[in-house]
Amino acid sequence: MPTLKPAKLGLRTRLFQLIFESDTRIAKAFDIALVILIFLSVAIVMLNSIDEYHERFGEVFYYTEWVITVIFTIELALRIYCLEKPGLYLKSFYGVIDVLAVLPTWLVLLFPGAQVLVVVRLLRALRLFRVLEMMTLEGEKRLLWGALVRSRHQIGIFLFTVIMLVTIFSSVLYLIEPAEAGFTSIPKAIYWGIVTLTTVGYGDITPVTALGQFISVAIMLVGYSIIALPVGIFSAEVIRALQRERYSNEACPGCGKHRHEQDARYCKYCGTWLDEETPDPRRKAKSPEA
Amino acid sequence: MPTLKPAKLGLRTRLFQLIFESDTRIAKAFDIALVILIFLSVAIVMLNSIDEYHERFGEVFYYTEWVITVIFTIELALRIYCLEKPGLYLKSFYGVIDVLAVLPTWLVLLFPGAQVLVVVRLLRALRLFRVLEMMTLEGEKRLLWGALVRSRHQIGIFLFTVIMLVTIFSSVLYLIEPAEAGFTSIPKAIYWGIVTLTTVGYGDITPVTALGQFISVAIMLVGYSIIALPVGIFSAEVIRALQRERYSNEACPGCGKHRHEQDARYCKYCGTWLDEETPDPRRKAKSPEA
Amino acid sequence: MPTLKPAKLGLRTRLFQLIFESDTRIAKAFDIALVILIFLSVAIVMLNSIDEYHERFGEVFYYTEWVITVIFTIELALRIYCLEKPGLYLKSFYGVIDVLAVLPTWLVLLFPGAQVLVVVRLLRALRLFRVLEMMTLEGEKRLLWGALVRSRHQIGIFLFTVIMLVTIFSSVLYLIEPAEAGFTSIPKAIYWGIVTLTTVGYGDITPVTALGQFISVAIMLVGYSIIALPVGIFSAEVIRALQRERYSNEACPGCGKHRHEQDARYCKYCGTWLDEETPDPRRKAKSPEA
Amino acid sequence: MPTLKPAKLGLRTRLFQLIFESDTRIAKAFDIALVILIFLSVAIVMLNSIDEYHERFGEVFYYTEWVITVIFTIELALRIYCLEKPGLYLKSFYGVIDVLAVLPTWLVLLFPGAQVLVVVRLLRALRLFRVLEMMTLEGEKRLLWGALVRSRHQIGIFLFTVIMLVTIFSSVLYLIEPAEAGFTSIPKAIYWGIVTLTTVGYGDITPVTALGQFISVAIMLVGYSIIALPVGIFSAEVIRALQRERYSNEACPGCGKHRHEQDARYCKYCGTWLDEETPDPRRKAKSPEA
Repeated sequence: MPTLKPAKLGLRTRLFQLIFESDTRIAKAFDIALVILIFLSVAIVMLNSIDEYHERFGEVFYYTEWVITVIFTIELALRIYCLEKPGLYLKSFYGVIDVLAVLPTWLVLLFPGAQVLVVVRLLRALRLFRVLEMMTLEGEKRLLWGALVRSRHQIGIFLFTVIMLVTIFSSVLYLIEPAEAGFTSIPKAIYWGIVTLTTVGYGDITPVTALGQFISVAIMLVGYSIIALPVGIFSAEVIRALQRERYSNEACPGCGKHRHEQDARYCKYCGTWLDEETPDPRRKAKSPEA
Repeated sequence: MPTLKPAKLGLRTRLFQLIFESDTRIAKAFDIALVILIFLSVAIVMLNSIDEYHERFGEVFYYTEWVITVIFTIELALRIYCLEKPGLYLKSFYGVIDVLAVLPTWLVLLFPGAQVLVVVRLLRALRLFRVLEMMTLEGEKRLLWGALVRSRHQIGIFLFTVIMLVTIFSSVLYLIEPAEAGFTSIPKAIYWGIVTLTTVGYGDITPVTALGQFISVAIMLVGYSIIALPVGIFSAEVIRALQRERYSNEACPGCGKHRHEQDARYCKYCGTWLDEETPDPRRKAKSPEA
Repeated sequence: MPTLKPAKLGLRTRLFQLIFESDTRIAKAFDIALVILIFLSVAIVMLNSIDEYHERFGEVFYYTEWVITVIFTIELALRIYCLEKPGLYLKSFYGVIDVLAVLPTWLVLLFPGAQVLVVVRLLRALRLFRVLEMMTLEGEKRLLWGALVRSRHQIGIFLFTVIMLVTIFSSVLYLIEPAEAGFTSIPKAIYWGIVTLTTVGYGDITPVTALGQFISVAIMLVGYSIIALPVGIFSAEVIRALQRERYSNEACPGCGKHRHEQDARYCKYCGTWLDEETPDPRRKAKSPEA
Repeated sequence: MPTLKPAKLGLRTRLFQLIFESDTRIAKAFDIALVILIFLSVAIVMLNSIDEYHERFGEVFYYTEWVITVIFTIELALRIYCLEKPGLYLKSFYGVIDVLAVLPTWLVLLFPGAQVLVVVRLLRALRLFRVLEMMTLEGEKRLLWGALVRSRHQIGIFLFTVIMLVTIFSSVLYLIEPAEAGFTSIPKAIYWGIVTLTTVGYGDITPVTALGQFISVAIMLVGYSIIALPVGIFSAEVIRALQRERYSNEACPGCGKHRHEQDARYCKYCGTWLDEETPDPRRKAKSPEA
């Protein structure tokens, strides 16, 4: 992601520090106020969806929602104003979210009902992690994220194979089971198949024939055991990442051996000084003897 | 936690040893009697909640319950009496539980129905572990507990992200699905979302539209695969804790630092020869030169 | 388990080899015939429980069942006859199963309906593993079984804590939810709690109040995440067992270092010959030179 | 699998390269066209199973299906034509799938309804992996597949034991529960048992008696905890495979054996100095003696 540079004007720079950074006291207060507004706004949409509250507080909710939307719109405008290259920001992950957070309420003017989409604002709360992260767990998050990224191909293949098998088995059940059992089409049978394989098991569609129940049992046992695969893949990647972290990649200049721990200063096999940029303290100690 | 010191009076000291410690024979008998009373009391509340038993044995249950409560209240009074700083005890984990275990029955005098809360007494049975632990598995419990504590941030982030995504997807389903399917409000839709993601799948609310079922399937597959994350995180922490065990506990005779691998021959920090039982091969090599 | 020694009489010894051992050809045939009879017998009980088959083949099933029971009874008598200490056998795991396998059909003479218990015979099929094991995977099974045994305390504590928490939360739901929702007593509420925590989620009892659904969601999230604990515990034990297996416990006689792999013949650190029972082949090669 | 050799004729060789290989541009285009046709064909079968679409587009679907089947049949004929030993191909995994992919539509002429089986064509999409794999993740797939193959015995024993226990418990529930609860026969009870143990929990059959619910709870807790076993087994196999990676791939210059750890300095089998770039310290020590 290209870094977002502030414009050089005094006001814009100060705005940039207030809105985009979080190392001054006032900038932190700004971030926290933002997160509170986000949660407030999402809570309003949720409560408004409950008939009882809608009748009683509908109007309050309506105006609060608009106030928050206007605040967020102004904030968005300021964000765009204080950046030198606002285009990059608008195309970035957080930029897209910021626009999405504002859109639904405005869209309501055109399409009634759209305000439910305001829950997308929750994604803005991810900023909270950015604030928290600066203090802690950056390293561990990178480790886990790295493990997730590196295992994405394998988990992708896993999911593809699983969906393929479910499709085939579900089609067989569509043939076997009567329509009254709920297997009215192949897509519906696949819906049932995934409900079964993932062990969710709603029970809205269940096999009623003996053969159908037998095949279902096979799908369940597969779904129950096969979970070992993504867990094993991911665990292995985490362990691999931990091991890579523990050892430096450099060989000992004395004996050429690898696998020295990151914090080692002497080779554990031959005692050679490993840090080539600073002199060996033993050398110093011996030079007067010479 | 500050340690709880007994008062110096003879009676109070003996009471302290009986109630708080468990190394003498009579103190152990006291602990076991307590645990039996706890389970008896909980069993009574449970059985009393079954109409049939309530009608037949209601009165027996009522009086037994009061007898046990009086015993527990006396025990609590003695606990407070025999400590020098009862305030610390009342604010500690077990102190709070001990008070909570006694309160419900007394509260019944004010609010009928509260006696069900007597099941809180079950938490007192945790004392049982304290007794058992002294004999075994202290080390392993610490290892697991440590792994749990160290992975709490990551599992917290995991749960927060999961709940956020569920909220957004559930709101979409609230828009799509008709109210008759059970999606009557966003909080209800979120309830459904978590029932689905955690693969519980009651089936009291199920999507009926094709689009809704398609999104549900996505949530299920995510919920099914994503379990790999907390498992991987926790496993990695356990393995990390085990590897820490791999290091020898001995300090380097040169610099006093720890964390040398079991098979290291030279200190990785200062290069000192670690194996005190055999001579350093470097010494030999240098002595003829001298 | 004390070993079962055969009597010294010719016939009894030969019977012992036929029935208890499985290294001769005929003894293997005997084992396989037994397993086939076991599965046949279980299949009959199953089919007999289906009304349709019971009506058509009820009598055939009845007589076959009796024939198999008589064969198993004779076999049991021979087992007792050919052992010197039949008491030990009857108290052993397989002895108990052998008696249980025969009892139900005889009990039917007293209590009609008991023949369903004939499925206990399935446990006799565990003998099959004894036959298969001799050829393969003895080592791996021991490794896994050892890991299971060593993690039993921790998984026990895990289950106890889980059940305790479920009991407390379920009692709260019993208070909150109306009886019409299915929460008619605390034991029923606990049944619901475990159905929820284990993510089974039948849906026969579901919360209907907002507060009840909120607490349910908490139980679900706990149940979904907490599975990481037994998995992590068990995985750690397996890994620990694997690491213990890989290294021999003996130190190198040359440099005193540990952590040599089981199949190593020379110390990987100093090149010393590790196998003290046979001479070093390098020595031999050098002696003529001397 | 025996390798499939192309016939030596020019046309057949070129056909072979087009159809079986995927390293030229046109061969890749052929593969992609094939995959598109597969997905198109499966999509048609799915949509056709939905009444609404069947009524509107039934005829279009019918003819498209036949066109695709004819294309696949010609492709199959060409595959057979361009191979020297088509018998080997027809008996291979992909050969069987290719025939199965063509059969259902032709079978429809004999048995109406069979065209649903066209979803078997999805298995042809596995070829897609062959194309993708060539570029990446061959090594990692082999690692996981190897771990899966090596843990198949243990997971087999795990599943057998689980099914045996479920059978026994389910039979007990068949005895206890009234037929109205859904436990109409032992096979049906086993279906319920596996639905419960795998935590699918449809809720179409649920226990209604107190004792039945108590036993169900036991099955659920076992099913919930026991998942740790296949996960642990598989994880252990993956970790074992990763550790094997830890060994250097180089053979000992003395005895030619492999499996030396990355940090070993002497061959653990014959004691030869492994690091060819630096001299053996033992040599130095001995040369002055000579």
